[in-house]
Amino acid sequence: MGLGGGIGASRLWRVLAGAVDPARLTVVVNTGDDLWMHGLRICPDLDTTLYALSGRQDPTRGWGLSDESFRCMEALRGLGHRVWFNLGDLDLATHLLRTGLLHDGWRLAEITGRLAAAMGVRARVLPMTEQEVTTRVETADGRLLHYEEYLVLHRASPPIRRVLYDGIERAKPAPGVLEAIAAADIVVLAPSNPIASVVPILAVPGLRDALEGTAAAVVAVSPIVSGVPITESGERARARSRAALLASVGVPATASGVARLYHRLCQRYVLDTADRDEADAVRALGLDPVVLPTLLHAGAPAKAIQDAVLAAV
Amino acid sequence: MGLGGGIGASRLWRVLAGAVDPARLTVVVNTGDDLWMHGLRICPDLDTTLYALSGRQDPTRGWGLSDESFRCMEALRGLGHRVWFNLGDLDLATHLLRTGLLHDGWRLAEITGRLAAAMGVRARVLPMTEQEVTTRVETADGRLLHYEEYLVLHRASPPIRRVLYDGIERAKPAPGVLEAIAAADIVVLAPSNPIASVVPILAVPGLRDALEGTAAAVVAVSPIVSGVPITESGERARARSRAALLASVGVPATASGVARLYHRLCQRYVLDTADRDEADAVRALGLDPVVLPTLLHAGAPAKAIQDAVLAAV
Repeated sequence: MGLGGGIGASRLWRVLAGAVDPARLTVVVNTGDDLWMHGLRICPDLDTTLYALSGRQDPTRGWGLSDESFRCMEALRGLGHRVWFNLGDLDLATHLLRTGLLHDGWRLAEITGRLAAAMGVRARVLPMTEQEVTTRVETADGRLLHYEEYLVLHRASPPIRRVLYDGIERAKPAPGVLEAIAAADIVVLAPSNPIASVVPILAVPGLRDALEGTAAAVVAVSPIVSGVPITESGERARARSRAALLASVGVPATASGVARLYHRLCQRYVLDTADRDEADAVRALGLDPVVLPTLLHAGAPAKAIQDAVLAAV
Repeated sequence: MGLGGGIGASRLWRVLAGAVDPARLTVVVNTGDDLWMHGLRICPDLDTTLYALSGRQDPTRGWGLSDESFRCMEALRGLGHRVWFNLGDLDLATHLLRTGLLHDGWRLAEITGRLAAAMGVRARVLPMTEQEVTTRVETADGRLLHYEEYLVLHRASPPIRRVLYDGIERAKPAPGVLEAIAAADIVVLAPSNPIASVVPILAVPGLRDALEGTAAAVVAVSPIVSGVPITESGERARARSRAALLASVGVPATASGVARLYHRLCQRYVLDTADRDEADAVRALGLDPVVLPTLLHAGAPAKAIQDAVLAAV
């Protein structure tokens, strides 16, 4: 099973689902980025996960659906609305269905299961919680921004003071989450933004205890690979956000820095060969470092990724 | 000024807005058909009115926008949802904007004004009320259907017992409505479905008194024209609904039948030349019948319609 958030995690889940029986794969997804917008409930990480696992993800953008169009957003702009979060015409169907079902009294885990089934996803996809948790960034000048606002609208540029998970103390693990952790052979912490996409999952009351108590091997995959050229502006904003959020908890944006964040939870830590110099630092934390060729970056050959991941986990 | 609902009314408003200074035209629109769907607030009659007055209305369908696409609805069907109320990709922008503003605390009249301005509509478009009123149809077998469900999903085929306007007793006229009635030179009751689109407006507490008290000439335009061939299935459902709803209050689906419904409110009643035989029945109600060549039907020449309407009002 796996725990994680958006794009980085979904690439890994897709590889795993292609390598093992997907019916044996459960992924627990961050919902701290979820937001209400135009009256719709949007779950960016759940959707990215479902789209990736169903093969519907746009391969170049990395988010959203392939063959997508944005006529509705263009019309919204035409009505004078400042659109900062792009919802595709096809993607909107997911939000409409989810929101309608929420209004009809369905729970988020049931809805996610229904969406997964409708998309032909055979892996089990669970939200971390069914309660509303909102990841907010407090900027140095005292504003409280929704994480997506910080990342997408402000391109992760305002200096930040700290990250909050609003509502986390009232959150309960979604049905099936603790059971999946207890029953797992292997738990993978995904190469997602640690503070935005993994820590909120770990912060759901009861989840960390379950991880500490599981008999499964727990493996973390470094979200940071040195020296990867970043050219795309969304990718740049995501890297900036990852570093700024890590800095807000005093962790350097390096592979071994992230290992420090996870070291009490996992036994193994996968780093890229580009970061092999950090293997000793990882070992010093009491973790077993696994150094492997470039993982999970767009453009890396799927087979190489698959072999590397399976070897690691 | 005018009072009315969906398609029939919007054709008339468009003609009037072309004939007089649109800045002098106020229309008060039925909101009894409004519905919450997928978490979005949909106002079919307001939107039909705005789309018609802005020249954005699809000329053949009679509802919705021209150059519309339905990719989102196709995707919803692909997710296993039974779509019965088609929302176009461009049309969705209106619902997203409205719903977002409602969540931000805007009032429906302000939102409608903002939408009208964004669309370049110079006439003043007001909802009848800002409170939620829901027109429901009680079927002969005891079900309570939202009016749009009855009309669109069930094609107006189940036999009905009565029509209810849920919430009407708590409704207040929207800001500007009573003032517009008091200040008008002419008030036109539109050729809309009387029970679904005009009577709910008249039922908003205070509105009927304002109409009885105005110095304006009040003119009703018959929504029924005999002998017009109806070929389109949506049009057929609308005609069936109009007749069934009138029957539920004991009024025959004829031009003079509708005159009976309005006779205490207006002085003049416009009927089509096809219904000239009913002029005496209209006169017997104390109304001044105005018999004119075919009004407002799709395909009738705009100039003829315009002249006829202006002559009547």
